[in-house]
Amino acid sequence: MREILAQFARITENAGFLKVTPEFMPKYNAFYAQSGGVTAVINASACGVIETARANRDSIGKVFAGKNGIIGALKEELIDTSRESAAAIAGLRSTPSGAFGSCRYKLKSFAENEREYRRLIEVFQAHDVRYFFYNGGGDSQDTANKVSHLGDQLGYSLTCIGIPKTVDNDLPLTDTCPGFGSVAKYVAISTREAALDVASMCETSTKVFILEVMGRHAGWIAAAGALAQEAPGDAPHIILLPEVPFAKARFLSRVREVVREKGYCVIVVSEGAQYRDGSFVADAGSKDAFGHSQLGGVAPTIARMIKEKHGYKYHWAVADYLQRAARHIASRTDVEQAYAVGQAAVEFALAGRDKIMPTIVRTSDSPYRWKIGAAPLARVANVERKMPKSFISKDGFGITARARRYLLPLIAGEDYPAYRDGLPCYVRLKNQLVAKKLRPFKIR
Amino acid sequence: MREILAQFARITENAGFLKVTPEFMPKYNAFYAQSGGVTAVINASACGVIETARANRDSIGKVFAGKNGIIGALKEELIDTSRESAAAIAGLRSTPSGAFGSCRYKLKSFAENEREYRRLIEVFQAHDVRYFFYNGGGDSQDTANKVSHLGDQLGYSLTCIGIPKTVDNDLPLTDTCPGFGSVAKYVAISTREAALDVASMCETSTKVFILEVMGRHAGWIAAAGALAQEAPGDAPHIILLPEVPFAKARFLSRVREVVREKGYCVIVVSEGAQYRDGSFVADAGSKDAFGHSQLGGVAPTIARMIKEKHGYKYHWAVADYLQRAARHIASRTDVEQAYAVGQAAVEFALAGRDKIMPTIVRTSDSPYRWKIGAAPLARVANVERKMPKSFISKDGFGITARARRYLLPLIAGEDYPAYRDGLPCYVRLKNQLVAKKLRPFKIR
Repeated sequence: MREILAQFARITENAGFLKVTPEFMPKYNAFYAQSGGVTAVINASACGVIETARANRDSIGKVFAGKNGIIGALKEELIDTSRESAAAIAGLRSTPSGAFGSCRYKLKSFAENEREYRRLIEVFQAHDVRYFFYNGGGDSQDTANKVSHLGDQLGYSLTCIGIPKTVDNDLPLTDTCPGFGSVAKYVAISTREAALDVASMCETSTKVFILEVMGRHAGWIAAAGALAQEAPGDAPHIILLPEVPFAKARFLSRVREVVREKGYCVIVVSEGAQYRDGSFVADAGSKDAFGHSQLGGVAPTIARMIKEKHGYKYHWAVADYLQRAARHIASRTDVEQAYAVGQAAVEFALAGRDKIMPTIVRTSDSPYRWKIGAAPLARVANVERKMPKSFISKDGFGITARARRYLLPLIAGEDYPAYRDGLPCYVRLKNQLVAKKLRPFKIR
Repeated sequence: MREILAQFARITENAGFLKVTPEFMPKYNAFYAQSGGVTAVINASACGVIETARANRDSIGKVFAGKNGIIGALKEELIDTSRESAAAIAGLRSTPSGAFGSCRYKLKSFAENEREYRRLIEVFQAHDVRYFFYNGGGDSQDTANKVSHLGDQLGYSLTCIGIPKTVDNDLPLTDTCPGFGSVAKYVAISTREAALDVASMCETSTKVFILEVMGRHAGWIAAAGALAQEAPGDAPHIILLPEVPFAKARFLSRVREVVREKGYCVIVVSEGAQYRDGSFVADAGSKDAFGHSQLGGVAPTIARMIKEKHGYKYHWAVADYLQRAARHIASRTDVEQAYAVGQAAVEFALAGRDKIMPTIVRTSDSPYRWKIGAAPLARVANVERKMPKSFISKDGFGITARARRYLLPLIAGEDYPAYRDGLPCYVRLKNQLVAKKLRPFKIR
């Protein structure tokens, strides 16, 4: 009945026939969850969702957030975001990581685990949830899509909107993924800074500096290191991408060339750098004295190669979580886009659109202009976008002008958080759970 | 003759007898060099030196900077800073690393290598240098002191002023060392950010995060990680300092306690963490498959210990040069102090003071107040200041309230560089050399 009323209200309102007063307008709740590895700006998307929902109180009820992502929905652990002050929600815009908790939990295929999909619908039904916003990468868009179709099958009307997020920048159909621009900015700035350090010391000390960055399958993040260059020949001198098979001899001779010419060599390497046979450079078969595989780090691995061959003094850094949590130097463009896709998700849902993901559409490189678009979830799910060949320089150690044109706007602008006592003020929410209504559910 | 005139001018001016007009005032040049590992703010000290010298054109000639530090003086490679625009010099204030090049080159004892000390005097004499400003750590202050005494012996009047610099914060007689505050801020912010990341993922993913920071001999930098805490019990949960012998079993059981209580554990470890016998934890005897010592990284080493004992999923980061080059998030207090010691060095020299180093004197913790003092070079040289016991918590895994009171003001304030195209604008100088006047000199 409520559904029919809502539909009626929408039709009549859209047609301009009559204004339904808020009291008669049925309001459904929304469920929002963060999924997978967090970013410096995923909370900005959450902020966009919640603030936009609050601005549309007439049409949408509460926003419940999954405690630790989709697991929160399965366990019926729903955070009532209406308990948070407007200031706390606004603070999400400048707080890194996932404020409600995230998880690496991929629902299996529908055939394998119908039970979990059904449980989601059951929980949504129990809490009057008719809007499902899932903030994550390719897997999450896939899940959202499946849940949506199950709703249809069961006759439970559920509006499912994916919200893009991933530092890996590997979602299709969107110009970029919120989260990536800020990592790119961090990597570009860190490379520029560390390169100045090495340059000033190379006469008597370190000759080679290696920065290891994320990107297990695609080299987007490592490629962003190239933005540190002000002129051709500037550091970083070598970028190692997963897309280009690692050729040890050629790499080592390039390092020597650079050191001879410049006095030092700065290298940015993707954690996913790999040999032609697909084995990771970081797993190059070396074991420690106890027979364990050498722990992590493609950076120390290639540092050793260089030391063995050329004897150069080296330093290396592994940025790891620092790069994706570095809200202190987030890209303003990225923050704005992260907020915008959160906002658009709610607006799309309220406009009756379903099974889509808001995307970033670039309308101009310079000056950079973008707008929000939409892509069907079915076409986003499980597609991985690698760096195009046209973005990789001929020698495989750098990027092209085209790649630079693409990347540069994504790191534009700063968006500093507020500081207190020399440290950024990041919000912590109360995260109060809604009372459970269902029996417990065991996650297998 | 010039010297006598200069002395006469100083005496009469100080006594207020007569004002010597600039044309008659003999002007000597200054030599400035950067020494040892660079920092985010050593160029701010250079800026203080050069701008203050320029503001005193009547009393001081050109400032020559050593190309690659003291090696530049030995090789007679003197950079003429007067060729740089006022804007470029002002830009040094917000540019990390050493703009003129630095070096790890310690002059041997005077007895062992009188030749080099004499060469310095010879170069200074050839270029009318009567002011020697040496910007570095303990070793550099020792060198400056020795050069000064040799000048006295040879009847060559040379004013020698040390300028403190070191991220290690281990110089005596000064409340802090320029360079440290900015690393401390970087480490505190990075720890807070990464901790939020781990906290949001720990339910299904990483349980332990380890950040390795600098500090081969003293734990000042690792201690600064504790500033990330907003309340007791916050991350970082464990800090491993070189001052506290590493006890593996006790450490591992603490990690388990923290993970059980909080769900995750954040650890900041000093690269200098060591066992009771003084051996570094990072060199824990492990070799790779080729029989080489495992490369670097106390972080991966303790990560493996934790994995073996508890099986927790972990991540680790090694900040390396990123931490000391991170001008993008420098402490404003640190930048101001770095500039102030450079400025004071010139002012001291012009006031006829010699063989001293400007120091930071703290006059109040809260509100934080400081002023410039002075310490004799002889008392600064080769003294290493470790963390006092009263700064280390009883369990050895953290810091005391007293340490926090000391550290907190040092990271206060932000001092953002200008940005263009999403990246900080760091200056690059022309670094034009003065024509040589002497025969070449071979550094042995």
